[in-house]
Amino acid sequence: MTFQKVDIDDISINTIRVLAADVVNKANSGHPGKSSFELRLGAPMGLAPVAHILFTRFFNANPKHSEWFNRDRFVLSNGHGCALQYILLHLLGYKLSLDDLKQFRQLDSLTPGHPEHGHTDGIEVTTGPLGQGFSNAVGLAIAQAHLGAVYNKPGFDLITNHTYVFLGDGCLMEGVTSEAASLAGHLQLAPGLDISIDGDTAVAFTEIVEERFRAYNWHVLHVDDGDQDLQGIYNAIEKAKQVKDKPTIIRLRTIIGYGSKQQGTHGIHGSPLKPDDTEQMKAKFGFDPKGTFQVPEATYAFYADVAKRGVKSESEWEALLASYETKYPREHAELTRRIRGELPNGWEKTLPVYKPSDAATASRKLSEIVLTKISTVLPDLLGGSADLTGSNLTRVKEAEDFQPPSTKLGSYKGTYIRYGVREHGMGAIMNGLAAYGGIIPFGGTFLNFVSYAAGAVRLSALSGHQVLWIATHDSIGLGEDGPTHQPIETIAHLRAIPKLVVWRPADGNETSASYLVALNSKKTASVLCLSRQNLPNLEGSTIERASRGGYVLREVPAGTENLTIVSTGSEVSIAVEAANVLEKEGFKVRVASLPSWEVFDAQDTKYRLSVLRSGAPIVSFEALSTLGWANNLVWTFSVHRLLIKKSIKNTDSLLLVRAFPPYLQCMYVFNVTSPSPDVAELGKKIITFYKNKGGEVVSPLVKAI
Amino acid sequence: MTFQKVDIDDISINTIRVLAADVVNKANSGHPGKSSFELRLGAPMGLAPVAHILFTRFFNANPKHSEWFNRDRFVLSNGHGCALQYILLHLLGYKLSLDDLKQFRQLDSLTPGHPEHGHTDGIEVTTGPLGQGFSNAVGLAIAQAHLGAVYNKPGFDLITNHTYVFLGDGCLMEGVTSEAASLAGHLQLAPGLDISIDGDTAVAFTEIVEERFRAYNWHVLHVDDGDQDLQGIYNAIEKAKQVKDKPTIIRLRTIIGYGSKQQGTHGIHGSPLKPDDTEQMKAKFGFDPKGTFQVPEATYAFYADVAKRGVKSESEWEALLASYETKYPREHAELTRRIRGELPNGWEKTLPVYKPSDAATASRKLSEIVLTKISTVLPDLLGGSADLTGSNLTRVKEAEDFQPPSTKLGSYKGTYIRYGVREHGMGAIMNGLAAYGGIIPFGGTFLNFVSYAAGAVRLSALSGHQVLWIATHDSIGLGEDGPTHQPIETIAHLRAIPKLVVWRPADGNETSASYLVALNSKKTASVLCLSRQNLPNLEGSTIERASRGGYVLREVPAGTENLTIVSTGSEVSIAVEAANVLEKEGFKVRVASLPSWEVFDAQDTKYRLSVLRSGAPIVSFEALSTLGWANNLVWTFSVHRLLIKKSIKNTDSLLLVRAFPPYLQCMYVFNVTSPSPDVAELGKKIITFYKNKGGEVVSPLVKAI
Ligand SMILES: [Ca+2]
Ligand SMILES: [Ca+2]
Repeated sequence: MTFQKVDIDDISINTIRVLAADVVNKANSGHPGKSSFELRLGAPMGLAPVAHILFTRFFNANPKHSEWFNRDRFVLSNGHGCALQYILLHLLGYKLSLDDLKQFRQLDSLTPGHPEHGHTDGIEVTTGPLGQGFSNAVGLAIAQAHLGAVYNKPGFDLITNHTYVFLGDGCLMEGVTSEAASLAGHLQLAPGLDISIDGDTAVAFTEIVEERFRAYNWHVLHVDDGDQDLQGIYNAIEKAKQVKDKPTIIRLRTIIGYGSKQQGTHGIHGSPLKPDDTEQMKAKFGFDPKGTFQVPEATYAFYADVAKRGVKSESEWEALLASYETKYPREHAELTRRIRGELPNGWEKTLPVYKPSDAATASRKLSEIVLTKISTVLPDLLGGSADLTGSNLTRVKEAEDFQPPSTKLGSYKGTYIRYGVREHGMGAIMNGLAAYGGIIPFGGTFLNFVSYAAGAVRLSALSGHQVLWIATHDSIGLGEDGPTHQPIETIAHLRAIPKLVVWRPADGNETSASYLVALNSKKTASVLCLSRQNLPNLEGSTIERASRGGYVLREVPAGTENLTIVSTGSEVSIAVEAANVLEKEGFKVRVASLPSWEVFDAQDTKYRLSVLRSGAPIVSFEALSTLGWANNLVWTFSVHRLLIKKSIKNTDSLLLVRAFPPYLQCMYVFNVTSPSPDVAELGKKIITFYKNKGGEVVSPLVKAI
Repeated sequence: MTFQKVDIDDISINTIRVLAADVVNKANSGHPGKSSFELRLGAPMGLAPVAHILFTRFFNANPKHSEWFNRDRFVLSNGHGCALQYILLHLLGYKLSLDDLKQFRQLDSLTPGHPEHGHTDGIEVTTGPLGQGFSNAVGLAIAQAHLGAVYNKPGFDLITNHTYVFLGDGCLMEGVTSEAASLAGHLQLAPGLDISIDGDTAVAFTEIVEERFRAYNWHVLHVDDGDQDLQGIYNAIEKAKQVKDKPTIIRLRTIIGYGSKQQGTHGIHGSPLKPDDTEQMKAKFGFDPKGTFQVPEATYAFYADVAKRGVKSESEWEALLASYETKYPREHAELTRRIRGELPNGWEKTLPVYKPSDAATASRKLSEIVLTKISTVLPDLLGGSADLTGSNLTRVKEAEDFQPPSTKLGSYKGTYIRYGVREHGMGAIMNGLAAYGGIIPFGGTFLNFVSYAAGAVRLSALSGHQVLWIATHDSIGLGEDGPTHQPIETIAHLRAIPKLVVWRPADGNETSASYLVALNSKKTASVLCLSRQNLPNLEGSTIERASRGGYVLREVPAGTENLTIVSTGSEVSIAVEAANVLEKEGFKVRVASLPSWEVFDAQDTKYRLSVLRSGAPIVSFEALSTLGWANNLVWTFSVHRLLIKKSIKNTDSLLLVRAFPPYLQCMYVFNVTSPSPDVAELGKKIITFYKNKGGEVVSPLVKAI
């Protein structure tokens, strides 16, 4: 193809520029803290030409059906510049009206301050936190490469879409971008394409970005006049598409505030575009200086033609898919099931079931057994580890690595991703894999290093991406690695993230239950916190019961109990032993296992009250920070508290264990051993306290508000 | 200088190699999960030659006084290879015996699984979580450049030390390393020097590292035979020291397992060094194959000479410092005060004090006022922002930027660092600045993006580095940016990190108090969570009272109250208004402000009970996740709960606000407005609940255990 410039190109680009000024100015006028030109308007105006060329000449999507599976994906990684994206969506005919543009950054509008997946039609991923969108796009490109390799057949190029990203210097500075870019280069992800623009970053950012991306094995192009050289922009994108074994980045040089009286000066950066400057710019670009939200009919008409091209593309693809069904019925059924986001019937029958006589096993190992079983029926799984495969046990023996064929280390059909030591990149890439559809991504690392990826994890939750973290070595039980690797606070953090579901299974059946619920929850991100050490299979645990998030493991007749101990993960079996010790001394003690707070919280009140019932004190027991437990429970008994009790340095009661003995010694320092006299002893103190206090003991679930 | 190889060089290098094998094997023999060669022994053996050359020929430090201020700093960024560092510390005569080496990775030993600052003599920074050490070293180098620029005078080169880092491919893959490396290149930090070795990372890491570092404006060298070419190693380090305007990275190629029967093969990577292989290696290197922990007297003697060189260096430096005192008494007094880690007498008198009639002000602005005042008396402050200076208000007007003079943007004397959009790098660099001494680092970003730096924040806390985070836009009050920027869960996370102190001041005096305590706590990292919106100055708040972490702001006669509302930050003034509303209806309501849980927890029990006293229900009120509050309180009333009550989408009660109205509208969605009828209404429900329930209401601080 060659580029045929038409008059309407300039009109359309100017429409975008002028509209962006109106959108941003209207939002600014509503409140005192006006955004600077650079923050909100710099990208929309600077990227107007390349956006216009990309969407009118290259982009393959159907605005009338934004979910079409083989659509090109577009990501605005510099999400604060989303006025641009909203304008393009509007011009192309997505479900976004001119009135919606006028509601930019307002309460309940479809045009929020940063683009959000699942909220606004046509938004592929939620962006704004810098570096995320770029890294999501690497996930989108991996998804395309993988599904294409698995399902495309000679004559049936079904999965062929491209991924396009716009980003700015802010994204380029973030470490997560470096991680994802290095991996993308290694993976030779050809259909990825990124367009970046220069900002005013001399104070902190003088590296040579083009050289850096060449070092990552990227194809690097640049356009010197991004404001006017439409032919150059077209050629760069066209050239990028011809490179088949590398991702491409195009560095676009633009004049900041092009069209403003202050264009290219330092003054334009810090303050909003002034009213008189806006007016002269509108006049310069051929618009009524006093008019606002002006879109020429010719622009609408030109973009309507682009949209028609998309409708045609989709219907051709549907026809291809129909004939694929005839020739490859099995693949067709599987692919379309995956596109619908459904799991195969009866997949859950592959989940392993345990009885108490089965050998004690680490839950990271139990997780490996689950993965081994379910991967035989769930080709949807595309997982990996951040360079801890041997510790996380995330790689099923039969798996092939996801690698470029030229490396001879695997192929794009492979389902196991070697993420490298790049936790944040892995988290953001998983969000892209989930956003693409047809894929259930999982990623392994130590629980402690999920924190490195916190920026991506909260976006998984917010966006409702089905992402699974396999987070092993989940407490002080990890042994000799010491406090730098002890995730005391991590579960509290994850529990506090809205919409994220945290699991801490206590044995085999609970591990199976956590996978059952996590895989059936198609709009939920889950973190599975797993032990390094062996855990016995518990009397009373079943997949069904654990699937409710919490249940009674050790019951006594109603009304007879002196105490309920609530626990999770590796501490549950110790709680049971403590209950047995107390029983010998004449106390009746219940034990409840609460592997997932969020899932338990979603059960009906009657059920929850039957687990955490009134009548006796309830104590929590977890080898982690106590923070959060008291929301549901009365007394907490966990590492934090034990540290205060048994502080190694009296002067510093909040000290973590400084020395990091092998597992058993480590748990011993905190009296978290088995059998554990201290758990029983403290249980007795609580019973006595309540006895002395007198009065009714009410479940913490009974609340005033 | 030129390199004079002596026989003892080979003997010493082989001593390190053989000793490393013994140290690691002994630790492995104690427990079942043996570490692979690559993980624990690869770096110690591969880096033995360069470590020997560096420490015997270049390194300037006094092992008998590891705190000497102008010592060279050494960082082992690949902390899992710490057997190497412990061996070197032992040979050089630091407080680490051969017996300590035998206790590698054991309970309470001085040789834990990863090197820890403050625990083992001679360890500058805690490493292990990958990428941190490298980034700490950038902080160490900034500190040297800054203090040198400020205090060195003609003829008085007092602050001249070098910073050396060893790192592996794992560190090079982490995003935090990319962030710190790019900034170090921009800052032209000449005395920084990094030595990296290749690992077996073909599956995920094929980028051209040397090109990447050249893109960052680093000086790049390489040594092809890192196992034997001592002259080459010497020359590379010497050459690096001659480059004055760039940091240098030396890529060292080594044969993995050099000396093992399996050297250079794939087999060496995954499993420990086998006993027979260890024996043949010992024989090959000239040691008794059956002996363990063998150190030839000649090696000790050679290293003892090196240590003597350090003693001499320090005493020469002390003499120089003494004559500096004569010529520059003011600078001498200030520098030595800073080296001692003391603050100037009376510095706290500069803290601003407010009365209720003073104008309502955003706490980010109150923070700026504090910084403006205290920076006049505290040259120790060296701060910056991750590209949000205009929003965080972290830059004092008179400040000069910390920049290489050649940029004409500032100088190394400057106290304001332009970190770029690099939150994680900033956090890790601040740890390095604090570890160097004489500097109090602070860094600004949105509270939401402190999460990007979580890996560094927990190490600040664990290491006891005095680091201040200026975390603005601290709840949904940030307005239109929306849920991608709403740090609902962040404070719960930070509160759960042991040893980290979190502040959320409610007004001017509380903001001053948070700085007072944070700056006086020389071994504590603090996060100051600050509002974007204006907050009224409260009747009853004083610096002194707020310095206790919690206090009663609105009191009623003891025994008469119906309710106590406890709140923090921007919600405290709303709690006071709610109390006033309830008073009109005949209820007596106390309000307590709890700006810092950790500081409040450290007060005596009697005081704490006087604030959260028995007799009436206590409710918490915070526009954040409720997680954690119930540890101290009975009912929680915050964004999480309100979301459930007022869920915008009924199907998803844990949804964050999808639309992001301007501040007041946003708070209104959650009924967190002022005056707030809902706070009062819910308060009444709680009062009624307890009235109906009957019985004594006991303070949550009264516990059984
Ligand atoms: Ca959660
Ligand atoms: Ca804390």
